[in-house]
Amino acid sequence: MSLRGFTRRRLLGAAGAGTALVGAGVAGGYLAGSAAEPDPPAQAIVPFRGVHQAGIITPAQDRLHFVALDVTATGPILRQAVVALLKRWTTAAERMTAGAEAAPGGAVNRNPAAPPTDTGEALDLPAASLTLTFGVGGSLLDKLGIPRPAALADLPPFQRDQLDPALSGGDLCIQACADDPQVAVHAVRNLVRMGFGTTAVRWSQLGFGRTSSTSTTQQTHRNLFGFKDGTNNLKAEDTAALDEHVWAAPTDGAAWMAGGTYLVARRIRMHVETWDRTSLTEQESLTGRTKGTGAPMGATDEFAPVDLGSPLIADDAHIRLASASSLGGVRILRRGYNFVDGSDGAGHLDAGLFFLAFMRDPQRQFVPMQSALARHDRMMEYIEHTGSAVFACPAGLGDGAYWGQSLLEA
Amino acid sequence: MSLRGFTRRRLLGAAGAGTALVGAGVAGGYLAGSAAEPDPPAQAIVPFRGVHQAGIITPAQDRLHFVALDVTATGPILRQAVVALLKRWTTAAERMTAGAEAAPGGAVNRNPAAPPTDTGEALDLPAASLTLTFGVGGSLLDKLGIPRPAALADLPPFQRDQLDPALSGGDLCIQACADDPQVAVHAVRNLVRMGFGTTAVRWSQLGFGRTSSTSTTQQTHRNLFGFKDGTNNLKAEDTAALDEHVWAAPTDGAAWMAGGTYLVARRIRMHVETWDRTSLTEQESLTGRTKGTGAPMGATDEFAPVDLGSPLIADDAHIRLASASSLGGVRILRRGYNFVDGSDGAGHLDAGLFFLAFMRDPQRQFVPMQSALARHDRMMEYIEHTGSAVFACPAGLGDGAYWGQSLLEA
Repeated sequence: MSLRGFTRRRLLGAAGAGTALVGAGVAGGYLAGSAAEPDPPAQAIVPFRGVHQAGIITPAQDRLHFVALDVTATGPILRQAVVALLKRWTTAAERMTAGAEAAPGGAVNRNPAAPPTDTGEALDLPAASLTLTFGVGGSLLDKLGIPRPAALADLPPFQRDQLDPALSGGDLCIQACADDPQVAVHAVRNLVRMGFGTTAVRWSQLGFGRTSSTSTTQQTHRNLFGFKDGTNNLKAEDTAALDEHVWAAPTDGAAWMAGGTYLVARRIRMHVETWDRTSLTEQESLTGRTKGTGAPMGATDEFAPVDLGSPLIADDAHIRLASASSLGGVRILRRGYNFVDGSDGAGHLDAGLFFLAFMRDPQRQFVPMQSALARHDRMMEYIEHTGSAVFACPAGLGDGAYWGQSLLEA
Repeated sequence: MSLRGFTRRRLLGAAGAGTALVGAGVAGGYLAGSAAEPDPPAQAIVPFRGVHQAGIITPAQDRLHFVALDVTATGPILRQAVVALLKRWTTAAERMTAGAEAAPGGAVNRNPAAPPTDTGEALDLPAASLTLTFGVGGSLLDKLGIPRPAALADLPPFQRDQLDPALSGGDLCIQACADDPQVAVHAVRNLVRMGFGTTAVRWSQLGFGRTSSTSTTQQTHRNLFGFKDGTNNLKAEDTAALDEHVWAAPTDGAAWMAGGTYLVARRIRMHVETWDRTSLTEQESLTGRTKGTGAPMGATDEFAPVDLGSPLIADDAHIRLASASSLGGVRILRRGYNFVDGSDGAGHLDAGLFFLAFMRDPQRQFVPMQSALARHDRMMEYIEHTGSAVFACPAGLGDGAYWGQSLLEA
């Protein structure tokens, strides 16, 4: 079976259109293929259900489409409308992550007098490791009259924040990661379409070139400052550290979040033009790492331990300020992406890092970390936080469960 | 040699840092690699020099970063500043398309007290079929006091145009296409950086999921309306048609453009939310093709000839209005990309098609085509042209020549 031959429509055809596709043998991570397939990873399917949501410790795919939505439904129907949408979303999301269309029949449906139930632009494309990760903003809990977990409090303002409200917040979020941007965009677009009448897009962000590995099987990629980014990131293989720093425990205060995690999203504009006029010495001093190998200053291996006693690592170097030992042991799971969003109207590219990080409690992890960086990190001279949001991402789903069920049926 | 091992830095190391890399054996299209390489196409190198510029009939890569720049230099130094920049750009572009850094020394340069001569974010990445295609806007000819070829006249306004001046025009353009978005972004960003003081970014556009094949070796991809797009596009293999419709002839009126072509760029916002609420019957009627296979209505094969006598193809179907036979034989070479640029602030994704097309004379090809479509194409109810530009892309470069030399030394 060739890569090109393995399409959404053939997949459906083989399994019988409309049948429950996932769970019928595709949950093993990768579909079996012949040795002749030119690009097997494109067919990879990441299981949708599990202990935790996919897209968090899944080895970071290379492309992102992230969307934050507001619930437009109001009044007595609000809760019911949200539940109905989340059930529909779950069914569609499970199908799409398996490489199927959003609904049976899909783009070329049986009733041509009706709008297609899939928008069609991914018809010929494989699953491409698509993951869809779902989160709830504190503002939705407020609307629903549900108390927020302490971890879901709004972030405080940080020094030098330049937040655009139009790029911040949101009642719900969906993070789509895939190895093909068209697959990620297709998934978000279809979920947005299904939300019409209940939700509206608040903001959305595309990203490429994942800047943080989430698995020891991955190499470290570079951000748009040209440096390897996230070398000391938490990794999927370190389950003890994930339990300590990423997954919410039943005793953390909100039973519906047990096994879940909190997502902090920050749109970080990088003033690349200014950075590019800075000397290599200054860039490496600010970062605390060498640009070539990514090794800590004074070392030669990227993964060499960071010796904070070394005078080669400046007092205000980014890796010192962001290190666990400078922050009382705080660590987070980063999963960010580079972005270029056209130009800024002033002759520059509007480029930067879309910072995504998962953690057990933003108030105890992100807040002290960002407070320290905002105050002392000289890299702040070259960046600007223009968007910010926090979402609660509940645990993964068992069979038959839907996104948000632990919250809405608590 | 593994894919990961084949980096810009090792490439330089192997050839001797700072040596003239291109032309020394990498012009054959693909570098030789071992059979163990997991993803050989990522290493593909498209020759920079040739009869025509690369990136026009090169099999369309999957990712785009397009930038339009204005020349900020003025007065008596204008011409000299432009020539100097175009020479520097040519050297850097040739290096980057071969997978090398923008300048010898590059991101980890020999003089750490100076800013690096490459921004570094592509250090570990292969060439990924990068092409850089250069064009000149009519506004630059006006500034230089050089008469415009008739083909480079400004486009007339079309019905329903909703053009944003901030997304239109430009003195110069660079089209970067690659199989990895970070490689395309890196190239544009470094050229933009080198232009500081002479040029400033006017607008830039990222794209993915090329919507038009430019070679018979490629499959037709889908646009964000979910339809296969560009089935009847001109193809690289049809050299007679390219000579007739794409390449400017010496007798066309501007000697410096012989062997070149004109690029029309249109940012076409698609109102996907409205489209998604339209029936399949209506979508197929508007298009004139079936959504599943892309075959003309009434046929089953995508590449079946379009029978304009068939009553199944509506009078105002897009494929009828855009067909060569409806337009007196006019054809163009399309090379567009899908885009999603965040959201529009009104609850919708800002998504669409970044239309790029190469042709011998926009006035005789694009203008009558777009005039007919703007007047009669019912698809116009679902789209909006928000940006527009025309550039003259001169012929390819011989050894030692620089971008724009035929114009500036005419």
